[in-house]
Amino acid sequence: MPKLTLTIFGESHGPIIGCVLAGLPAGIPVDGAAIALQMARRAPGDAAYATVRREADQPEILSGVYNGYTAGTPVAMIIRNTNTRPADYDAVAASNGDVTGDSSVAAGGGVVPRPNHADYPAAVKYGGYADMRGGGHFSGRLTAPLVFAGALCRGFLAQKGIRVAGHVSRIGDIRDSRLDPVDPGNALLERLSEAAFPVIDGVAKARMLEQLAKARADGDSIGGAVEVIATGLPVGLGSPLFDGAEGVLSRWLFGIPAVKAVAFGAGAAFAGMTGSQANDPFVMRGGDIRTATNHCGGILGGMTSGMPLTAEVTFKPTPSIAKEQQSVDLHTGQAATLAIKGRHDPCVVPRAVPCVEAAVMLGVAQLIVES
Amino acid sequence: MPKLTLTIFGESHGPIIGCVLAGLPAGIPVDGAAIALQMARRAPGDAAYATVRREADQPEILSGVYNGYTAGTPVAMIIRNTNTRPADYDAVAASNGDVTGDSSVAAGGGVVPRPNHADYPAAVKYGGYADMRGGGHFSGRLTAPLVFAGALCRGFLAQKGIRVAGHVSRIGDIRDSRLDPVDPGNALLERLSEAAFPVIDGVAKARMLEQLAKARADGDSIGGAVEVIATGLPVGLGSPLFDGAEGVLSRWLFGIPAVKAVAFGAGAAFAGMTGSQANDPFVMRGGDIRTATNHCGGILGGMTSGMPLTAEVTFKPTPSIAKEQQSVDLHTGQAATLAIKGRHDPCVVPRAVPCVEAAVMLGVAQLIVES
Amino acid sequence: MPKLTLTIFGESHGPIIGCVLAGLPAGIPVDGAAIALQMARRAPGDAAYATVRREADQPEILSGVYNGYTAGTPVAMIIRNTNTRPADYDAVAASNGDVTGDSSVAAGGGVVPRPNHADYPAAVKYGGYADMRGGGHFSGRLTAPLVFAGALCRGFLAQKGIRVAGHVSRIGDIRDSRLDPVDPGNALLERLSEAAFPVIDGVAKARMLEQLAKARADGDSIGGAVEVIATGLPVGLGSPLFDGAEGVLSRWLFGIPAVKAVAFGAGAAFAGMTGSQANDPFVMRGGDIRTATNHCGGILGGMTSGMPLTAEVTFKPTPSIAKEQQSVDLHTGQAATLAIKGRHDPCVVPRAVPCVEAAVMLGVAQLIVES
Amino acid sequence: MPKLTLTIFGESHGPIIGCVLAGLPAGIPVDGAAIALQMARRAPGDAAYATVRREADQPEILSGVYNGYTAGTPVAMIIRNTNTRPADYDAVAASNGDVTGDSSVAAGGGVVPRPNHADYPAAVKYGGYADMRGGGHFSGRLTAPLVFAGALCRGFLAQKGIRVAGHVSRIGDIRDSRLDPVDPGNALLERLSEAAFPVIDGVAKARMLEQLAKARADGDSIGGAVEVIATGLPVGLGSPLFDGAEGVLSRWLFGIPAVKAVAFGAGAAFAGMTGSQANDPFVMRGGDIRTATNHCGGILGGMTSGMPLTAEVTFKPTPSIAKEQQSVDLHTGQAATLAIKGRHDPCVVPRAVPCVEAAVMLGVAQLIVES
Repeated sequence: MPKLTLTIFGESHGPIIGCVLAGLPAGIPVDGAAIALQMARRAPGDAAYATVRREADQPEILSGVYNGYTAGTPVAMIIRNTNTRPADYDAVAASNGDVTGDSSVAAGGGVVPRPNHADYPAAVKYGGYADMRGGGHFSGRLTAPLVFAGALCRGFLAQKGIRVAGHVSRIGDIRDSRLDPVDPGNALLERLSEAAFPVIDGVAKARMLEQLAKARADGDSIGGAVEVIATGLPVGLGSPLFDGAEGVLSRWLFGIPAVKAVAFGAGAAFAGMTGSQANDPFVMRGGDIRTATNHCGGILGGMTSGMPLTAEVTFKPTPSIAKEQQSVDLHTGQAATLAIKGRHDPCVVPRAVPCVEAAVMLGVAQLIVES
Repeated sequence: MPKLTLTIFGESHGPIIGCVLAGLPAGIPVDGAAIALQMARRAPGDAAYATVRREADQPEILSGVYNGYTAGTPVAMIIRNTNTRPADYDAVAASNGDVTGDSSVAAGGGVVPRPNHADYPAAVKYGGYADMRGGGHFSGRLTAPLVFAGALCRGFLAQKGIRVAGHVSRIGDIRDSRLDPVDPGNALLERLSEAAFPVIDGVAKARMLEQLAKARADGDSIGGAVEVIATGLPVGLGSPLFDGAEGVLSRWLFGIPAVKAVAFGAGAAFAGMTGSQANDPFVMRGGDIRTATNHCGGILGGMTSGMPLTAEVTFKPTPSIAKEQQSVDLHTGQAATLAIKGRHDPCVVPRAVPCVEAAVMLGVAQLIVES
Repeated sequence: MPKLTLTIFGESHGPIIGCVLAGLPAGIPVDGAAIALQMARRAPGDAAYATVRREADQPEILSGVYNGYTAGTPVAMIIRNTNTRPADYDAVAASNGDVTGDSSVAAGGGVVPRPNHADYPAAVKYGGYADMRGGGHFSGRLTAPLVFAGALCRGFLAQKGIRVAGHVSRIGDIRDSRLDPVDPGNALLERLSEAAFPVIDGVAKARMLEQLAKARADGDSIGGAVEVIATGLPVGLGSPLFDGAEGVLSRWLFGIPAVKAVAFGAGAAFAGMTGSQANDPFVMRGGDIRTATNHCGGILGGMTSGMPLTAEVTFKPTPSIAKEQQSVDLHTGQAATLAIKGRHDPCVVPRAVPCVEAAVMLGVAQLIVES
Repeated sequence: MPKLTLTIFGESHGPIIGCVLAGLPAGIPVDGAAIALQMARRAPGDAAYATVRREADQPEILSGVYNGYTAGTPVAMIIRNTNTRPADYDAVAASNGDVTGDSSVAAGGGVVPRPNHADYPAAVKYGGYADMRGGGHFSGRLTAPLVFAGALCRGFLAQKGIRVAGHVSRIGDIRDSRLDPVDPGNALLERLSEAAFPVIDGVAKARMLEQLAKARADGDSIGGAVEVIATGLPVGLGSPLFDGAEGVLSRWLFGIPAVKAVAFGAGAAFAGMTGSQANDPFVMRGGDIRTATNHCGGILGGMTSGMPLTAEVTFKPTPSIAKEQQSVDLHTGQAATLAIKGRHDPCVVPRAVPCVEAAVMLGVAQLIVES
């Protein structure tokens, strides 16, 4: 089949967001309930840690699926934007340039880019033509089509015995237990891949919720990380050098807004290890060649080793915070302050777990169709 | 121009290694001395931390350069392999499967894959057809053409006022000072980008050398990290989502053998930060829009922000160690031990700095020609 | 910008057809009337030569356009399928395997592929999962999104002074006059690029209409050709060898269903020419370097020469004909006859002119953004 | 495997020409004699129709082949340029701007582009940095690596029972017999694919040789065409629309210098056919689904139909002729005449047959690895 390609389109406050996924083979079952479950994991709800904006996130499949299976032709999907509350975004704020909603349109018709958002480079790159209301094409909302595409890939991978699951491995100072990279256990993976706030250790989860509540109360936000694993992979996916498995997967993972670090296996901890600590000895297990440890995260020389593929992905804190921040009016060149009053998660990490799983599933599907 | 592409070819113990770089514009000066300097930084020498194998690493440019400038057509380059000492690799070891040189060919004609090397997945993927002597196409030696290609890109970027430099930010427990991500200083960058073992802090360098000497004495190896920076970038390179600057750069960086983690800006430290700590306020500086801090590493929404681009790249320890290791004979399925007696660096990180710089320069060049 | 990509999706009898066009710069005016005009040229109407099926072909732009200009983000567009008359396609025919509508579903649940249609290879390739009703993803109807995408590119090219127009150069035995490849005249190009049945020579057009009427009366169809020209191109678009202008354009042109030959400049006539006849002498014209003749169709060495780019594209006759044809029942392996009774053009060529123009405009836009 | 890519590099008067072919699977036998045979078919010899310049065309495989089989890693190959006679190209001609050899360097240091050559657009595109001696990267000599790459693919296709052969179907007014597109006969294909001047009909060949002799005597050149066929293809290679088999193949075919038209099956003759004439009825033959005729050239809806794939490719006359021609001095803007006195074929078509076969084999190999 041709190279697997995903094109995500749409703007946060346009009529729709959506995607086209081309390159999946025909005959993959498309399970509406499974898709809806994954969409719901990503969608904001009433939980204390998520924005209260309700997004229906009803995917409408427009093409490429027939009688419940992929047809082999491009799958197009849209989600209508029904709850955009334009008043939040069109409003012009008072004298100090404060902003209502996500808008970066400030008093006097000036434009004040939000720190750590795409506003400023987008203004330069697109010369003012982009629809940046609510973040536009750069909104985190654009990850909904990613999760949809991942759910289609999940069906493809399931046919091959491949399973992908993630969990919130860190929020602020609080760390979850790690997955066992040699034998994570299917029951645990199943629980995590269906949970709204997937954490292995219940105590850690409770403390994470406290951190989130504190950040919300402070008008602030907080960063975190997601650990993800893929089991059941064949040996030899991926190619040397610039077509290696790490490179292919990292392109998908860094495509998720707010991701700033991607690590495979022991990741940054490798810097402090010796070779005799880091090397994973080969052993026979039930007639198969395996490694006794799995510091390499299932990838050797850019190729899958047959061991579980593991990665950890770090998210920066949500840049939209209620606290007052310094910025600059792009029209006048004057200093300006802004305080973002819209509805925002104090932390995207819980909702990002299905996004990370989706990115990994797309990457693995790409490696399969190209290997 | 067409998309910038680099194809690296060759095997460690074949006649040559080399590359073709296509897509660079015509008219870039090709400075032989500058190329030689970068090749020498990567090449092993007599230093205590590097393998004693001497590689001439003389690049022969075969095409695409005319009268000292790029011609606009593909640049092909080869380096002859002159010092391969085949006896190291063809030797068959004694009863315990010990190995001389990098070879994975063990006693009795069996094959014993080296832990954390590409041997095992390559054996499965290529079904025994690949030339794996000395690591073959997976040898770290294949980074010499990468450094060459990076040196060509350095000329391209210099025309645009872009400067790239890296340093050994960590070996084992020892960390170097960090680069100032807002204003790193051109003199420092110039010094680092020409040094054989570039470290900011001389005390840290001395302690790193001690760690390397200890690892060598132990018959072991050690991991580390490289921090890299690019200054002078225009605003708006890179595109949303899967064509973002982080994704493009990470594909190049993970293409370097042994890289297991890539982080931009504050990287994994973002997980422990609040939004009010992490957000980089916009300020005016000399008529330009800048940020007061640069936790985001010069990338916002996948696009360059005009601030220095910063990344840190973690390398796993060299897997070839003299200590005895456990493995499996692929032919018999029996447990086997091996101890690698060849010439190997205890740590690839000092020699990897020019590789990381090259990967970043190729990534930035790609972003420029595609933006 | 990233490489220009067009993904067309949808099935003839699914809910929609549509496309995503990614890679066009921001700031191109999007002129609804100009788009509607081009869509109408392709859409079937009441004309004697076109199918009587009425397709509203109302494009709905879902993303990537803001305040009347391209936003720089992917442009998604859908057209709803409103007039599919499923009875034509679901009907099961009588004992001889005759078919109503486009359907290939024959008596007894067998499947009888239509000669010269995609039915048979699609059945093998997709294993029965594709929605082939009405031709499915292979229907000529999928060219409507192509024409839409071309209309967006027309705005991009107009900003650069590039003009593209085509005409019906041949139907059956009847040939139109040729465009002057050195100076075709803007007034003529404007007339052709807006006409529903663009022909230079009125007498030829009348005779073409007679051929079409005869084919329709015979229950048959007829082939033809479209000549296309692009003026105002800069010198040097396109790259050597496999990235040449002819190769890039031909991929777009052969993407139009039923296209079986693509020729540039003098095309197949070159086979009978000598070098002294074929060579286009360079001359100065008003301070510019031009050629006195233009047999090469504005492309030398895969690069545009600054002269008008000319091509001719041949279409096979519409395969859907009322006459009885021989085929095979894929389920039983028995011979079967079919006679296609649905609504079909006797000739696609008049409606194909805007498709050919669109393919050329996409190809030229790709050459520009990649050069 | 990753997408099949061929990068050809080198300049006609540089040290080498060569290529890298990446993406072929491991385990394809590499037959030196078969490669040499194909290289010899393309190389000029003593024949009356070819240039008297002798090119050794000894391919040196530098990587990617091990123990006689492809290793699965990129195959790099170079051919040394040993017979460049620089005096032909560096010479500066007399007052009328005449040129010795291929050189476009004219009297007074001016530059006079040769009509129908790449000289002029290359001068603009590369701004004088390209090495255009002897045509540089645009020389027909760059097809030698193409033929090499095709020979590797021939081994890959032979493993799958696919056979490719071509013949000189036309030179000037003289046409060869056509291949039977339904059953061309293996013996004929074998003969053609090994012949130096492959023609089906001996009488036609004799008359072609007369045309070539006359063109040479006239100081002129002549155009022609090559018909090519591929048998043994599976059903369903290629994808709808812009990834169809015609589009993929045409990109490779138009990559051959001097190709100006590509036609599949009945090609341009479709324009004069009715549907009842053009449609290929499906029939059962020995348990297989076949078509009784094969006007479509083995491609339906962009996908292979399982019938032989047929195409015809037209070449313009060699632009380098001894007759005096008009041009322009690029430096002075004055009219200039030139007469090219170097060694040139009066017709490239006989030597182009292995190039066309190679392009088809690369295209088919690409379709296989991507399908």
